[in-house]
Amino acid sequence: MRAVDIIRKKRDGQENSREEIAFLVDGATNGSVPDYQLAAWLMAVVWRGMTPAESAALTEAMLHSGEVLDFSDIPGGRVDKHSTGGVGDKTSLVIAPVVAAAGPGSKPGRVPVQIPAVYVTPRVYVPRQVYVPMISGRGLGHTGGTLDKLESIPGFNVNLSLAEFRTVLEKCGCGLIGQTPEIAPADKKLYALRDVTGTVESPYLICASIMSKKMAEGIDALVLDVKTGSGAFMKKRSDAEYLAKLMVETGRRMGKKIVALLTDMSQPLGRKVGNALEVIECLEIMDGKGPADLRELCDDLSAWMFLLGGRVATLEEGRALSVEMIASGKAREKFGEIIRLQGGDPRIVDDPSLLPKAQRTERVAAPRAGYVTAIQCEQVGIASMMLGGGREKMSDKIDPGVGLVLEKKIGDSVQAGETLCTVHYNSDARLRESLDLLAKSFEIGAQHPPPQQLVLKTIGAEEYLKEIPE
Amino acid sequence: MRAVDIIRKKRDGQENSREEIAFLVDGATNGSVPDYQLAAWLMAVVWRGMTPAESAALTEAMLHSGEVLDFSDIPGGRVDKHSTGGVGDKTSLVIAPVVAAAGPGSKPGRVPVQIPAVYVTPRVYVPRQVYVPMISGRGLGHTGGTLDKLESIPGFNVNLSLAEFRTVLEKCGCGLIGQTPEIAPADKKLYALRDVTGTVESPYLICASIMSKKMAEGIDALVLDVKTGSGAFMKKRSDAEYLAKLMVETGRRMGKKIVALLTDMSQPLGRKVGNALEVIECLEIMDGKGPADLRELCDDLSAWMFLLGGRVATLEEGRALSVEMIASGKAREKFGEIIRLQGGDPRIVDDPSLLPKAQRTERVAAPRAGYVTAIQCEQVGIASMMLGGGREKMSDKIDPGVGLVLEKKIGDSVQAGETLCTVHYNSDARLRESLDLLAKSFEIGAQHPPPQQLVLKTIGAEEYLKEIPE
Repeated sequence: MRAVDIIRKKRDGQENSREEIAFLVDGATNGSVPDYQLAAWLMAVVWRGMTPAESAALTEAMLHSGEVLDFSDIPGGRVDKHSTGGVGDKTSLVIAPVVAAAGPGSKPGRVPVQIPAVYVTPRVYVPRQVYVPMISGRGLGHTGGTLDKLESIPGFNVNLSLAEFRTVLEKCGCGLIGQTPEIAPADKKLYALRDVTGTVESPYLICASIMSKKMAEGIDALVLDVKTGSGAFMKKRSDAEYLAKLMVETGRRMGKKIVALLTDMSQPLGRKVGNALEVIECLEIMDGKGPADLRELCDDLSAWMFLLGGRVATLEEGRALSVEMIASGKAREKFGEIIRLQGGDPRIVDDPSLLPKAQRTERVAAPRAGYVTAIQCEQVGIASMMLGGGREKMSDKIDPGVGLVLEKKIGDSVQAGETLCTVHYNSDARLRESLDLLAKSFEIGAQHPPPQQLVLKTIGAEEYLKEIPE
Repeated sequence: MRAVDIIRKKRDGQENSREEIAFLVDGATNGSVPDYQLAAWLMAVVWRGMTPAESAALTEAMLHSGEVLDFSDIPGGRVDKHSTGGVGDKTSLVIAPVVAAAGPGSKPGRVPVQIPAVYVTPRVYVPRQVYVPMISGRGLGHTGGTLDKLESIPGFNVNLSLAEFRTVLEKCGCGLIGQTPEIAPADKKLYALRDVTGTVESPYLICASIMSKKMAEGIDALVLDVKTGSGAFMKKRSDAEYLAKLMVETGRRMGKKIVALLTDMSQPLGRKVGNALEVIECLEIMDGKGPADLRELCDDLSAWMFLLGGRVATLEEGRALSVEMIASGKAREKFGEIIRLQGGDPRIVDDPSLLPKAQRTERVAAPRAGYVTAIQCEQVGIASMMLGGGREKMSDKIDPGVGLVLEKKIGDSVQAGETLCTVHYNSDARLRESLDLLAKSFEIGAQHPPPQQLVLKTIGAEEYLKEIPE
């Protein structure tokens, strides 16, 4: 097999075989296929796209370029959630404890088993706990990252070995770590190459990159949160929806249960942006308070994780269970347990003032009265980054205490001079720039804007929402 | 300027600026832009194509990556011919001596000068000799190369320095050498990369590769022979015509006079294929004999060179001059002079038996009576290559004496058992394979095929065929 022939096939719009794709991915991992051939092939993929079979083959080859975790001996469902990223997107810190806190439950779970074209529900009378083995990333540019948020908790260690990860997962039902070198090394290699060859923006390559890492977590099911809007990677809804469908199709081909929630990112999720600030907002949610949009999305995502993991029989049951975990304080308790097991200071759960805090604040005032009609969400993320809450490049250091709090969101009425947003900062270096950017990010109009919908669509839901006979 | 931004622009179908293209080509030459970025850009060019301005910018940047010969102090026109390559395509060996032999002439030449939208003909009463500074290539695969043919002449040296090349050109009116490292190094670099990244087959990249090398010859005018048909690189006529137009447009943008003859390569040109055999056929032509198709094309190409070089005022005069140079024996004499000046044995002109000769012959017989309706021309080239007359890869050595002689061409009637083709060989190694391939290459039918046209079209001719007032 010659790389040049594989490239030519893709260039001419033909389908690459599973073996051809594996040849390139293996070559990328062990260095036997030179970067220039990979780059030419990647650009041909951007051009010609991929069939569902090719997408699955690419994902699978990248997945098997490294270690694939095996948690099949852990009794229960193993489910993760992945978000394509945005501003103030902190749901992982809520749903991991919520789902883990539910435990096996007192009622037997039921696992819908898919057989082509018919759905059969065996009555599985085993305790059906849902485990959450979550491998997350860091923030870059305007987007935040789960690892950075967790690391704002004093002592929290996201760099567990895979053995330690398993121990934490078994003990408390979830574990939250970062990428390890063993997981999908082909993705690391190809991502670095895509970054410098203009081949990042292909839904097929994005899909394979995300899915290969998620599939390596040893999960049975995955809930995707695909963001769209001004603060998302995919600004156009049609692009986001295409990617969501592609990932659902690819996950199914790899034998996983999977749904994708297409959600709005035309403004930050919740009100707090910045690492420790976002942990505080998650604690508010787990205290039964906090912003409604964040709570709603957390409940939806948890509900889907309960359903796909076989812990509940309907989405409504799942949602009720999520609400119950929060109302009972069990999620909050579980969050403390996770922190403790991963080396962090669990006292922050009861005393958020132990979290890093910026020394000064500054406010952005409304220039006139009216309604907030739009927020340039990506700009808000960049404004937080400028304060030190995010990274311009991967090597930048983060200041965990800084960030901003939105006092007004889309649809809120505002008086002239009223605070739109409070900035929490430590350094003056880029403060002015950040404040200016924020001032420009809020659009104020005379008319109340139409109400915002958060979950725009759920892709791939049908299979799991069918009436299951008792 | 960042390579990734240039790649992204081209990927998105936008036009790259002259500066951006120069940045990449300079980067390719000095190594500052890595191969993987060049490869991604090349694939994006295959995908998106190029505007005429981009094609010209790429050609110019590649041209200026190395030395550009300057023959402006040599009084007269400097014209070359370039063929895209085929089987039995030996016209260079005839037209270089024909054009050089014509000298300045006794009548004053006239140089049509182009001013936008009007054509003005200054009466230039200077002797107007046409010089031919020809830099050629080697054969690969089924196609032959001028350098290999010349090297079958004992002692002939194609590896002159650029200074020696100038001396030969000044002395005898033409010079025939190979690529030197000083000429268009960016093309060498990019061609090697294209070869392994599936990016050879882009008319824009082919155009820039050819034109950058030709423009480095210090010429004012260029006659292109763009081949199409089963033995050509561009098998489809529409592809060949597209490339021809692109090269004419690019040449014009670079201020050169240029035409492209679109010619048939659905069968070998002339009857002889193989290096010394082709030199012999050229001598036959210069003796006023030889196959009519080859003679016709040589006269056409020479006529265009005379016209674009300002030696004659009309194409008819040019053709008459070509015929005269052959009939008078001056072309033959000039060929001897060139050989002598480049270190070869000029006696071969009078005694072709001094050329290398294969020891044995074998014939391919017609399986049945009828008419030759088609010849798989590429296969004929490969059959010659198998005998040692060509190269499978660039490092292969050539046997100058071997090759084949077509006794029958398209339209010829043939009896069962009559010779279609005679093979001249030295080694048995691939003889059988070669003979089998040749046997399969001739198609014999009951009906006389429609007559073949050799010059299918002349592109860009209009400007030069206008009536020029006295």
